[in-house]
Amino acid sequence: MNNYYAHSLPANSKLTQKSVNRCFNGEQHYYSHQSTTTKTPMTFSVYLPDEALAGRRCPAIMYLSGLTCNADNVTHKAHFQQRCSELGIIFIAPDSSPRSDTDIDVPNDERYFVGQGASYYIDATCAPWAENFNMQSYIADELYDLLRAELAISSIGIMGHSMGGHGALLLGFKFPSKFVSVSALSPVCAASESAWGQAAYTEYFGDDKALWQQSDAAHTIETVGRQYLNILVDQGAADQFLADGQLQTPKLQQACKKAQQPLTLRYQAGHDHSYYFIQTVINDHIEHHWRMAQLS
Amino acid sequence: MNNYYAHSLPANSKLTQKSVNRCFNGEQHYYSHQSTTTKTPMTFSVYLPDEALAGRRCPAIMYLSGLTCNADNVTHKAHFQQRCSELGIIFIAPDSSPRSDTDIDVPNDERYFVGQGASYYIDATCAPWAENFNMQSYIADELYDLLRAELAISSIGIMGHSMGGHGALLLGFKFPSKFVSVSALSPVCAASESAWGQAAYTEYFGDDKALWQQSDAAHTIETVGRQYLNILVDQGAADQFLADGQLQTPKLQQACKKAQQPLTLRYQAGHDHSYYFIQTVINDHIEHHWRMAQLS
Repeated sequence: MNNYYAHSLPANSKLTQKSVNRCFNGEQHYYSHQSTTTKTPMTFSVYLPDEALAGRRCPAIMYLSGLTCNADNVTHKAHFQQRCSELGIIFIAPDSSPRSDTDIDVPNDERYFVGQGASYYIDATCAPWAENFNMQSYIADELYDLLRAELAISSIGIMGHSMGGHGALLLGFKFPSKFVSVSALSPVCAASESAWGQAAYTEYFGDDKALWQQSDAAHTIETVGRQYLNILVDQGAADQFLADGQLQTPKLQQACKKAQQPLTLRYQAGHDHSYYFIQTVINDHIEHHWRMAQLS
Repeated sequence: MNNYYAHSLPANSKLTQKSVNRCFNGEQHYYSHQSTTTKTPMTFSVYLPDEALAGRRCPAIMYLSGLTCNADNVTHKAHFQQRCSELGIIFIAPDSSPRSDTDIDVPNDERYFVGQGASYYIDATCAPWAENFNMQSYIADELYDLLRAELAISSIGIMGHSMGGHGALLLGFKFPSKFVSVSALSPVCAASESAWGQAAYTEYFGDDKALWQQSDAAHTIETVGRQYLNILVDQGAADQFLADGQLQTPKLQQACKKAQQPLTLRYQAGHDHSYYFIQTVINDHIEHHWRMAQLS
């Protein structure tokens, strides 16, 4: 491993460093740790610009990934590292759910939109999911506190893609005191009204529709009202999942209007749901979070 | 598939389009075709900026990948699309060798540096390799001619990484009338003097050391002399393969000096051999090829 800068974790660190690669003027790190919230090992990636490696506090972005993805997809394919290096931003990519490994057997489902890789970043209430599928508490409490304790972070914004865009909107509006900025790429805007989300919430919450609504991004924004100066959302206009009704983007517009929450919603002509779309717009999102961090 | 622009192949096209994704102001395409040179199906990716999609001729870069890689690695991880979109450059990423599929059985070796994924971009002379492992002729003749016939290309530069860096230097100096510019990332500079290359050339050429030398990049540059205004090479200073003697970078410096071939060789502090390194420097290489294309 090439520790170009002398970044060191606290002596009592809860993190195990898995890899280090220099990338632009900074380093791409991977860590794992034993989560008390999911009761599993959890792996995440962190890009640290040289300023952070030298110990200076930097703004951070928590990026929540979409269905099936782990930390690798966005870290390999989204190309956030260049702009984060240029602006001095820490970029954190957690896994999208707890997962089985050699030591632990986590519940799963054969549908790609339920179970491992499909946590929806909520705390499940029904068996067998409630034991491990507590990603809301994992992201907003355990990982949040761990990162603030162990890395040189000045503030945290939250963003995500697809199911992770739902997660970013949901957690951003449930915990506005924790996050200084929110943005989303192709988000599932109303999980309780999409076929993907309905299948997952039936498993995680059973028939309690009040719980479904509390974990619906558009409903949450409507309920809690304006929290941010502005939120930025990009959506591919040629995204098949938009056409299929999984994303329900107009519901987000309606909710922000009712909540008087300023929203910049951009439809990108010709773009689909892929990482080719993500890399096309991610610099604008990094800059959005950077500007909001300057104001915070 | 989202054909945002009306890019159309010739009516008698030899190419089968596999996928199209919009990315920045252009499209990432994948194609396959039946190669008469390798006697296998071959798959490659092409990034086409909007100018090319609209039919205007653009400069192209042929990118040769390193050991084990196919077209996906660089297309997903190197992030060339943004700068190619901005400058109006076509980026072509072939596979690194012929491969077995359901219809054809291609020779292979259990060592990752010999056989499939390890063609060295040469024409093998020994059985069983000589039947399919003719990547020099595939790249410099068959694919070269096919691309010029079917895409809106004004000129072609050649670059590559590791074993593909060797390929770019080798083919660039063997066929200087075909390529207008050459650059390399962490190239294998003297394949006949690296353990990887010696293992491969023993298989592909047997004991004929004259053939080894004719397929050694440094030796070829020394033999043919200056061909380009300048060539650009980036090398990670913390690259384990450099320390292990696989890359032989000083041999390239010596060869260029003897050939009076101007060389910009940059060692990048802290950087390793990975795609994190590639994405860090690739924009400089795209700009190098763009400048050379303007002069050509």
